[in-house]
Amino acid sequence: MDQQVIANGNCSGRVVEGPTNPMVTPLLTDLYQFTMAYAYWKANKHQERAVSPCGFDLYFRKNPFGGEYTVFAGLEECIRLIANFKFTEDEISFIRESLPGSCEACDESTSLFLEFVFHGNSLLILKRRTKYRIWQDGFFDYLRGLDCSEVEVYSIAEGSVVFPKVPLLRIEGPIAVAQLLETPLVNLVNYASLVTTNAARHRFVAGKSKMLLEFGLRRAQGPDGGISASKYCYLGGFDATSNVAAGRLFGIPLRGTHSHAFVSSYMSPDEIIDKSLRSADGSSSCEDLVSLAQTWLSKIQWSSSLRGIFGETNQSELAAFTSYALAFPISFLALVDTYDVMRSGIPNFCAVALALNDLGYKAVGIRLDSGDLAYLSCEARKFFRAIEKEFGVPGFGKMSITASNDLNEETLDALNKQGHEVDAYGIGTYLVTCYAQAALGCVFKLVEINNQPRIKLSEDVSKVSIPCKKRSYRLYGREGYPLVDIMTGGNEPSPKVGERILCRHPFNESKRAYVVPQQVEELLKCYWPGSSDKPREDLPPLKDIRDRCIKQLERMRPDHMRRLNPTPYKVSVSAKLYDFIHFLWLNEAPVGELQ
Amino acid sequence: MDQQVIANGNCSGRVVEGPTNPMVTPLLTDLYQFTMAYAYWKANKHQERAVSPCGFDLYFRKNPFGGEYTVFAGLEECIRLIANFKFTEDEISFIRESLPGSCEACDESTSLFLEFVFHGNSLLILKRRTKYRIWQDGFFDYLRGLDCSEVEVYSIAEGSVVFPKVPLLRIEGPIAVAQLLETPLVNLVNYASLVTTNAARHRFVAGKSKMLLEFGLRRAQGPDGGISASKYCYLGGFDATSNVAAGRLFGIPLRGTHSHAFVSSYMSPDEIIDKSLRSADGSSSCEDLVSLAQTWLSKIQWSSSLRGIFGETNQSELAAFTSYALAFPISFLALVDTYDVMRSGIPNFCAVALALNDLGYKAVGIRLDSGDLAYLSCEARKFFRAIEKEFGVPGFGKMSITASNDLNEETLDALNKQGHEVDAYGIGTYLVTCYAQAALGCVFKLVEINNQPRIKLSEDVSKVSIPCKKRSYRLYGREGYPLVDIMTGGNEPSPKVGERILCRHPFNESKRAYVVPQQVEELLKCYWPGSSDKPREDLPPLKDIRDRCIKQLERMRPDHMRRLNPTPYKVSVSAKLYDFIHFLWLNEAPVGELQ
Repeated sequence: MDQQVIANGNCSGRVVEGPTNPMVTPLLTDLYQFTMAYAYWKANKHQERAVSPCGFDLYFRKNPFGGEYTVFAGLEECIRLIANFKFTEDEISFIRESLPGSCEACDESTSLFLEFVFHGNSLLILKRRTKYRIWQDGFFDYLRGLDCSEVEVYSIAEGSVVFPKVPLLRIEGPIAVAQLLETPLVNLVNYASLVTTNAARHRFVAGKSKMLLEFGLRRAQGPDGGISASKYCYLGGFDATSNVAAGRLFGIPLRGTHSHAFVSSYMSPDEIIDKSLRSADGSSSCEDLVSLAQTWLSKIQWSSSLRGIFGETNQSELAAFTSYALAFPISFLALVDTYDVMRSGIPNFCAVALALNDLGYKAVGIRLDSGDLAYLSCEARKFFRAIEKEFGVPGFGKMSITASNDLNEETLDALNKQGHEVDAYGIGTYLVTCYAQAALGCVFKLVEINNQPRIKLSEDVSKVSIPCKKRSYRLYGREGYPLVDIMTGGNEPSPKVGERILCRHPFNESKRAYVVPQQVEELLKCYWPGSSDKPREDLPPLKDIRDRCIKQLERMRPDHMRRLNPTPYKVSVSAKLYDFIHFLWLNEAPVGELQ
Repeated sequence: MDQQVIANGNCSGRVVEGPTNPMVTPLLTDLYQFTMAYAYWKANKHQERAVSPCGFDLYFRKNPFGGEYTVFAGLEECIRLIANFKFTEDEISFIRESLPGSCEACDESTSLFLEFVFHGNSLLILKRRTKYRIWQDGFFDYLRGLDCSEVEVYSIAEGSVVFPKVPLLRIEGPIAVAQLLETPLVNLVNYASLVTTNAARHRFVAGKSKMLLEFGLRRAQGPDGGISASKYCYLGGFDATSNVAAGRLFGIPLRGTHSHAFVSSYMSPDEIIDKSLRSADGSSSCEDLVSLAQTWLSKIQWSSSLRGIFGETNQSELAAFTSYALAFPISFLALVDTYDVMRSGIPNFCAVALALNDLGYKAVGIRLDSGDLAYLSCEARKFFRAIEKEFGVPGFGKMSITASNDLNEETLDALNKQGHEVDAYGIGTYLVTCYAQAALGCVFKLVEINNQPRIKLSEDVSKVSIPCKKRSYRLYGREGYPLVDIMTGGNEPSPKVGERILCRHPFNESKRAYVVPQQVEELLKCYWPGSSDKPREDLPPLKDIRDRCIKQLERMRPDHMRRLNPTPYKVSVSAKLYDFIHFLWLNEAPVGELQ
């Protein structure tokens, strides 16, 4: 059956497009997912879903960046992969060659020298005079027929605030398919959630009123490291990106003006050939914007309040600014630190901005990309205000100041503490590479198979998995804040508004509390119903996911959100699930002897 | 003219394929590259190359990971982009909408309310009763005709060991095109070089004899963060990857067996339906491999040297191992830490391996994914040796031991210090995300325009750029080690073997040394000749780049390579270039007054 038909069927007529990055295919997974798939197939376990479902939880164990919250992102890309999951013949041939026991793998890892022949439908390996039958063709027919029509996906809504241990996604279906999905789903969720959280944290420190621009493409980890950073930073609360490809793919607002190289590329104002500019209302024309700017420069230089602040400015910088203003008179924003911010960049900018003002154009502002940003922004503001006052140009003092240059959460915080006049931040490297913590540790754990709950034990308690196909709820308190997330067994009744419920720490016996929720939100919803007839949640547009994220972050109790010593948000299990976890734990753990 | 024709023309009939990731297009750049392109076009500077060339250097300022070397990678992807650089009509329409001054940008950043009409060939904005002419259509015709036929690219060979300040690439050509290339080239080189260097550092600590496996896909920064990590880790000296997509794209050997979930998915040996296995030579068949393994398990349990080491092992684990062995008898490798390594995993593995041995199959080994890897690997080795001795199975003691679980340079080093028996490492998160330093700071600086050298000044000396279209050489000493890299002006004679040359620190007057090179290697070669008739370097296959990298690393003087306090490798300029830099510097820097 054609995959798109299945997808359409499952989506009640809604087509799910393929992954944004065409490199996201069913081969984007670890080899061991295929070796396991073969072993499951050999053991006839690959279709266990047909008899009884198996379930995997995708979750993380620790919030990133020393914080106490995470924003979940990447769901849409996961569903796009699942909806279009289908192997091509070329991919199947490649898997055939790649399974261990095929020439290359065997040769290197076992130091056996092997030769190959085809015999009927099976590949034989001749080793000296011995024969091994490696794998059976039925497996590749199985892969050929494989899609996600037997898989069901339950997920928290993308853009939600989420916490450790609570499943972000649950995948139900045949174990072999679920495992093939493990690597790409974890990949698609890990970085997406990490960088969204990083963006949200930057927004938190910068404050609501500032404009946040993502400038990270050149330093990102590869091309779609850059493209997905732009998407998810926008989701996490940024206003715009410099990345044109991301702007096009996701409809994110774009920002950009010019670089130092643009300024350096000019030697003198003589290089500008066409210096004329029509006024904004079209009524008149200035024949020489360079001269007009130079006239303004000397007026500023000798004005009463600014006299003596600067001497001769860099003329090639003035040329570059004028040239840029001629190209973009209605959106003039200049990078003012190529030579010297206060002695050259700011006066040159103001001269050009005042010349534009004569023609009815309003300049946008400046960008600072080096030096002491707090100090320079305050000095620039003073300069702008002095101009407004001296020359009677209303609004000149409010000229926008953008700051960039290796900014991160800490530097934004430090700027706030020092006091500054920055209106917009351009943030790159530290944001998109998540320099403070470059990975989120999402895992994908088997929680149930054949209706049997499974637990993964570990000597490290934080690594013990919570078994069963669970349901999860967020309980809200009187003040409207989320109080606690609670996981229950799949068949337990859901918590009810106004009814007292015991919330237990999953692993710590002494930590428990009664809660009377004022609102109960079920967290996991069906985003891919497989061949079941369950209703399927919509995949909302990016703007809506972004709105959800911003609203959810605003609804959190402030002590969970603060940068210094935030209060951990509580994650719990029901009394019944608690007992069951500990029953299983005792059952599975080997009994040792202390020696 | 068709781009491919130009590419063919430039390549003497050799076609350069497009970028590996189809998302790498001319739009994968910062918006300001387009606003500058428009401003250059307006000022008639876009074709400056036609009159006199401009040059940009791509280089980095500091070696990553606290080391004193970097491996350069990413060149092939850069050339693939350049060879196929061409805008589609859709892309041009998108750029038209995205330039500031277009509705969305203007509206938000300047708070003006604008309306649009088309007037002849130009877009007009009606603002109340005023009109702005935004941009001219000629620019989009210019973009339509744009390709890299006027661009020349000089580069160090991919896989070379490189050092700060020495240009990795020089781009010559029309300034507007060179700037459009800035963002994607820096993106393609930054992460590629960073992760290659990280891989090389892991190889250095692990030692030549160990097998290094890259397992990072699920934790990588997005899908091609994973795919390019696999490529560049292989380049940097890894042996294989788990990433099937990367194996297919780049021909990298693949490795993988099974996960904890595979082990957890079994409840008991009764689940295995077909338990039979033919012997390796095909002469006989074992009807029940499970029973055979169980028999071996009790033999081990009661053997003289192993008696009492373990009690009852986990039977579901034994079932999983047997099932996997039935599927892959010639490449049996088991993950032994799902329950308890020494009390369950190792004995179960040995039982299955000995059963396989009865049938003429040689097991490959085990993987440890948690716990004290040094201790457990030594204990496992003892166990294997005891089995070899006790049951007379030659080679059993040499069974391969793979270790994984959040490994990085430090943990490899710690394992070496403790002593261990690990043969292979599976390394993921810390490797592919470059957790220790998630970004390399490559920059792209204008060094010459209209035959005028340009310098970028900064109060931070390490950020001052080295002007001119330079040539760079690596000088080798008597013992065959590279001694120093030297940059000279484009027209200076090249250093000669046996002739004394003065090498000066570019910014520190007192640091200088005479060198008599025993070998001189010119570093920058032409990889894209544009429309010139210069010969073009081949893009070698990945395997050759990897070999180059390994050889270059081996040739370095050991004190540059050590992890603790490595000696910085010297980077210098010729006496003539030194004088010229400082002449320009004085000329450009503003003269301040101390107050």
